[in-house]
Amino acid sequence: MNAVNETRLIGLVERIEDLEAQKKYTSDDIKDIYIEAKSVGFDVKAMKQIVRLRKKEKAEREAEEAMVDLYKEALGL
Amino acid sequence: MNAVNETRLIGLVERIEDLEAQKKYTSDDIKDIYIEAKSVGFDVKAMKQIVRLRKKEKAEREAEEAMVDLYKEALGL
Repeated sequence: MNAVNETRLIGLVERIEDLEAQKKYTSDDIKDIYIEAKSVGFDVKAMKQIVRLRKKEKAEREAEEAMVDLYKEALGL
Repeated sequence: MNAVNETRLIGLVERIEDLEAQKKYTSDDIKDIYIEAKSVGFDVKAMKQIVRLRKKEKAEREAEEAMVDLYKEALGL
């Protein structure tokens, strides 16, 4: 591999690593919120289930909307 | 549940959802970098292996340092 490509590869890998680190920080922030929630008396398992449920509902709503958009486009609406 | 706790619960759930969304954006950014890498001729599978390898090495280095720190502390160094 020539020097230009090496530099380019290192750059790409480092950008990926920075973003991976960012993801890790965000995951830690999420954990901290659950710790906070627990400390004020909320049930963490129940909260996680709510988050999952709301995500699923949102995904379903968006899938439905996307389908309607597709049909609208197909029918020139 | 009283209104204060309800508001508090909603606040916590929404903070979690914002952070989950942030994680999703970061994951998408990572995917974009791999797409960019592929478009300039790099092998994505090999790159992913490099990222994994460097992460493992970093984790091992940090674990070693943490152990040395622990022993230093134990021996009052």
